[in-house]
Amino acid sequence: MPKYLSRKAKSITPYTAGAQPKAKNIIKLNTNENPYPPSPATLEALSGFDGAALRLYPRPDGGELRATIARTYNTDISNVFCGNGSDEVLAFAYDAFFDGDIMFPDITYSFYPVWADLFDISYKLLPLRDDFTIPIEQLKANGIVLSNPNAPTGIAIGLSEIETVLKSNKDYVVIVDEAYAAFGADSAAPLVASYPNLLVVNTLSKSHCLAGLRVGYALGQPHLIDALMSIKDSFNSYPLDSLAQKIASAAISDSQYYESIAKKIIATRERAAEKLSSFGFNVLPSGANFVFVSHSAFAAKDIKAYLESQGIYVRHFDLPRISNYLRISIGTDEQMDALIKTVDEFLSK
Amino acid sequence: MPKYLSRKAKSITPYTAGAQPKAKNIIKLNTNENPYPPSPATLEALSGFDGAALRLYPRPDGGELRATIARTYNTDISNVFCGNGSDEVLAFAYDAFFDGDIMFPDITYSFYPVWADLFDISYKLLPLRDDFTIPIEQLKANGIVLSNPNAPTGIAIGLSEIETVLKSNKDYVVIVDEAYAAFGADSAAPLVASYPNLLVVNTLSKSHCLAGLRVGYALGQPHLIDALMSIKDSFNSYPLDSLAQKIASAAISDSQYYESIAKKIIATRERAAEKLSSFGFNVLPSGANFVFVSHSAFAAKDIKAYLESQGIYVRHFDLPRISNYLRISIGTDEQMDALIKTVDEFLSK
Repeated sequence: MPKYLSRKAKSITPYTAGAQPKAKNIIKLNTNENPYPPSPATLEALSGFDGAALRLYPRPDGGELRATIARTYNTDISNVFCGNGSDEVLAFAYDAFFDGDIMFPDITYSFYPVWADLFDISYKLLPLRDDFTIPIEQLKANGIVLSNPNAPTGIAIGLSEIETVLKSNKDYVVIVDEAYAAFGADSAAPLVASYPNLLVVNTLSKSHCLAGLRVGYALGQPHLIDALMSIKDSFNSYPLDSLAQKIASAAISDSQYYESIAKKIIATRERAAEKLSSFGFNVLPSGANFVFVSHSAFAAKDIKAYLESQGIYVRHFDLPRISNYLRISIGTDEQMDALIKTVDEFLSK
Repeated sequence: MPKYLSRKAKSITPYTAGAQPKAKNIIKLNTNENPYPPSPATLEALSGFDGAALRLYPRPDGGELRATIARTYNTDISNVFCGNGSDEVLAFAYDAFFDGDIMFPDITYSFYPVWADLFDISYKLLPLRDDFTIPIEQLKANGIVLSNPNAPTGIAIGLSEIETVLKSNKDYVVIVDEAYAAFGADSAAPLVASYPNLLVVNTLSKSHCLAGLRVGYALGQPHLIDALMSIKDSFNSYPLDSLAQKIASAAISDSQYYESIAKKIIATRERAAEKLSSFGFNVLPSGANFVFVSHSAFAAKDIKAYLESQGIYVRHFDLPRISNYLRISIGTDEQMDALIKTVDEFLSK
């Protein structure tokens, strides 16, 4: 009965998230979750939370979490915006800053074109080079969205390249999505003070082992944050729930634990990358908590199917240019050993 | 630097939520929070939650909470949609079902016109009668939004009136927002099976003492729920956070506690209404957890200012037709006694 739907609801094609299989005892390397639990201090914030306080609304100004993020980045709350995951933050940013003719790479987070369609914002895709690096000097439009490191390639760019993009798009907002930056890219956060067109977006899903809590944030100059608040307050009257704010605040304050986890994941990634390379895989240089790999002799789909038959989930995107690649999240050393052993089994069959 | 903002960000006027004062020892009767804590079973869901599980994303299909709501309403998950508070659910519903020319009363939840502006949906306001009842037979447009009981008046309508609206708007979606229904209106949920154009929206903020958790939901036939999912999945890739889902599920399953709390609040409301009437207030008949009152001899603003000076917060809307009314949330008996005493002080000055 399509007669009840708006024109938009009839026309949009939603984003599809990676599967969350219900089976136990699987090895889940398909959605870039962190294999380690949140820190003890984070879990204490949960267990110490006064549930009776849930009867009250959270403070509309974003309260505790916003203040904690500001403190962590040594900045003011007027530079901080929080949302229900970085996806929500990015959605608001599209709505707040873009009217059309924006640009992002042809191979990047597959939600970028979905938001453009949702808000009826026209966009151009900038083709990555054959080695999947970004031709930075060609990024020029009425709004730019960049993931650094890029996903699903994992390739990071430096701050000088980010500055090049900011300078050549002076009159438009450049969004730098740093969901994976903790695993191998310099954050552009220190550039916020110098560039009125920079919005840095981050999430606690990967770096802070809190994918289930749905917390993201943005850093930018107050005129950008105010616009995000304006859109948010026209959409949902309150910020993140009080409990998520409390837990996220504790996580963000506990940088030592999360930095050590990131180091561990980077070491596991490098070991896994080396092993997969030795099997004949092309492994793109990754600054993220995943590797993006392709084998010249075997189809990505077949490898994925075999892994899945053995209870190991990885992600495959059936998209132009990358349909023979697999994105493999970095798990624990044990999980990666199991992955490598199973890939080896497949290749030796 | 407005040059960075989208046309929309430059033009919208956000909704303003009631204040959440930081001071302690105040009596907060301004945002319709429930004065009682969540039930013991709800708090056990919080204390028993395995924080380590937060490293994983919630299941994209809405998982546990959706299933619990379906079970509670004796229906299927295909009839249920969940969101970050009923505000988010309502925002998605506007986007999914309305293209323009919708209608809602001139005096109602002040977020309704804000969503219309956000999504560029034209609307007509239906003037309430002088006694603030809705001229039901005049509700005819390309989409209807009704709050039942209405806010901030508190006046409820019956299911037969809801059916009249559904029948005279057969080809368009009718949203019935039941945020306050637990305190004195029949839910339209049982009508969902018979009316393909009905979307019932509810929240756990008031009835389930969980304003701080930001959980809302909608009930409708699958073609409506699918459209909501489509819009949501084009906006944010995951549902409510796992912890909120767990706690909300426990709350919804514990109907006995919350029904007894609602009864208590209704009894307190009737007592307070009687007392305020005896002071010369016009107290509208309320089916909600607040009363909407006006005094012929004293200005609402002055009463509010005096109450606030005594640490008691109530809500005043500086809007046409209701600028001499105050909306007073129903607190505990003790809180209402303090309110009544303070109002009496003011009137006797």
